[in-house]
Amino acid sequence: MKVEEAGELELIKKIACKFRRHYPPVILGAGDDDCAVLECKCLTGKCLVMTTDGMRASTHFPKGMTPFQMGWSVVAANLSDVAAMGARPLAFTVAMGIPPDAEVSLVEEIAEGIERCASQFDVFVVGGDVGRSDELTLVGTCVGFVERRKLIKRSGANVGDAVCVTGHLGNAALGLELLRGNVKPRLSRSAEEVAKKALLKPMPRVKEGIALAETGVVTSMMDVSDGLAKSLHELSMSSGVGFEIYPEKIPVPKELRNALGEKALELALYYGGDYELLFTARRDSLDVLKKVEKETGTKISVIGEVKRLDEGIYMKGDKREKIELKGYLHFGATP
Amino acid sequence: MKVEEAGELELIKKIACKFRRHYPPVILGAGDDDCAVLECKCLTGKCLVMTTDGMRASTHFPKGMTPFQMGWSVVAANLSDVAAMGARPLAFTVAMGIPPDAEVSLVEEIAEGIERCASQFDVFVVGGDVGRSDELTLVGTCVGFVERRKLIKRSGANVGDAVCVTGHLGNAALGLELLRGNVKPRLSRSAEEVAKKALLKPMPRVKEGIALAETGVVTSMMDVSDGLAKSLHELSMSSGVGFEIYPEKIPVPKELRNALGEKALELALYYGGDYELLFTARRDSLDVLKKVEKETGTKISVIGEVKRLDEGIYMKGDKREKIELKGYLHFGATP
Repeated sequence: MKVEEAGELELIKKIACKFRRHYPPVILGAGDDDCAVLECKCLTGKCLVMTTDGMRASTHFPKGMTPFQMGWSVVAANLSDVAAMGARPLAFTVAMGIPPDAEVSLVEEIAEGIERCASQFDVFVVGGDVGRSDELTLVGTCVGFVERRKLIKRSGANVGDAVCVTGHLGNAALGLELLRGNVKPRLSRSAEEVAKKALLKPMPRVKEGIALAETGVVTSMMDVSDGLAKSLHELSMSSGVGFEIYPEKIPVPKELRNALGEKALELALYYGGDYELLFTARRDSLDVLKKVEKETGTKISVIGEVKRLDEGIYMKGDKREKIELKGYLHFGATP
Repeated sequence: MKVEEAGELELIKKIACKFRRHYPPVILGAGDDDCAVLECKCLTGKCLVMTTDGMRASTHFPKGMTPFQMGWSVVAANLSDVAAMGARPLAFTVAMGIPPDAEVSLVEEIAEGIERCASQFDVFVVGGDVGRSDELTLVGTCVGFVERRKLIKRSGANVGDAVCVTGHLGNAALGLELLRGNVKPRLSRSAEEVAKKALLKPMPRVKEGIALAETGVVTSMMDVSDGLAKSLHELSMSSGVGFEIYPEKIPVPKELRNALGEKALELALYYGGDYELLFTARRDSLDVLKKVEKETGTKISVIGEVKRLDEGIYMKGDKREKIELKGYLHFGATP
């Protein structure tokens, strides 16, 4: 069977099962969560988290993205995974695959983007590797630390918990439509800027992830960069629960709803690209989340409720519409 | 200027200078050494080391190499860098770039090679990333720990120190010549096997690196996978010293010398691919190295002496032949 036929999720399963897992010091291993987590004797009460995320010109860098923004993005993607564990990122390495006829200035601009995003979040770029590649490729790896008792996994959601999300969804998708010239909506200049920035210079929710982990009320968390729908399905698999989502509560920017109508919700669900955090929290502690919202300046929306696994993943409403497993996949069709 | 014109070393310099370095907690940053090294409060007396190393089909995987061996190699390359700090590797992640028409079985075999090499050295494969790529690409990242006082940098060599190397040099080069059918020498079957294994299933010197760090007599260390000549030049730059090398002491296997004559030494110097450690040690402590040799079962050879920087890097002998900066470079010509 070709990898294209197998599809990404199947392929990842086939790879991950080759690796020893759940042996000390590994708390979370390959394919388990947004990051791997290791507990070591030399780490007094803390865990090491580690993640790797690659980006390729043809699949990750839309036309019109600058080299600076490419560099920024590969850091943001990795920091978002670290944030999803409630951890503080510390160090970053990057392996660059560069076409031999590329300009040195392009590589320098990518490096500037990498450094700027890293330093904005107090992360040190400590190493890398360069090699020849037909296609421009950036593979980032980030490590960080989290207190053992504050670590938030994907697997902790309980029936009855509130389903929440940070910030807004759909901006990155709108940004892409704008960049491609597909939308000629009556959008305000500032809404356009916000959308483009979400796509081209995303801000990982590092301080929000840490603040949420501090509260002690968050039961599970992950990032939604592959789309809300795909993330809900992954959270469902990890926690063994279903989800009821309130469509009107999904934080799609008002202007996006106005400009695109029904399609806006679809983009927010199935497109991805927004570096927000999806999490579940104990129902009785929503006041605490208000505090985090105030502290970080980032909107937090309750978008649904955790249900039993056999209830599935669906939109609340007369039609009880199923939310499908669609989103950003690298190989093959959706299973 | 195109990256091809700039050359790899120039390019790395241009990238590395963009990143903040020598700020706490960074002890060694991008471009400084075989690994980055970070000191954290939460690590009681230990440092975190981190390295990333990528391999691409066209430049790193010779024809005839199996997928298992490709997976093995990307782990070995990263572990060798960790070993060069005297550190113990702990966890490994891999980002795979896979052509969409590749067979799933190929990816599974790569994963098996990765796991087998990692588990042989007590390392856990904890995560990864898969993506589409025209060319098969494997980017590995490894983290490990070392006691702060046992960390060995490239910068510690002193005039008068002995220059040493583990194992043998030239085997990987011979293996490549055999694979290409360029050599039809009267080699014993076992010598052929050793050479092919050095190329296709290299053994990083993890226990040797740790044992050498334990001795307290090693002043600087690095791996020689890019060739002895290039490594001597890098050690020279880091420590600000020159080297006198004894050509007859370079541990080229006897059969290789017999089969290739003069060319054997050239391969050992300029080809690379051998995962051995180059290090300097205090002159008065060579007995200690004998003990390491016995303990690890790995040959250690004294191949020269550390000289003043202005004396250069040369072969001892009547002609005092200069050792040139040539070796495995990814872009452009040798400066």
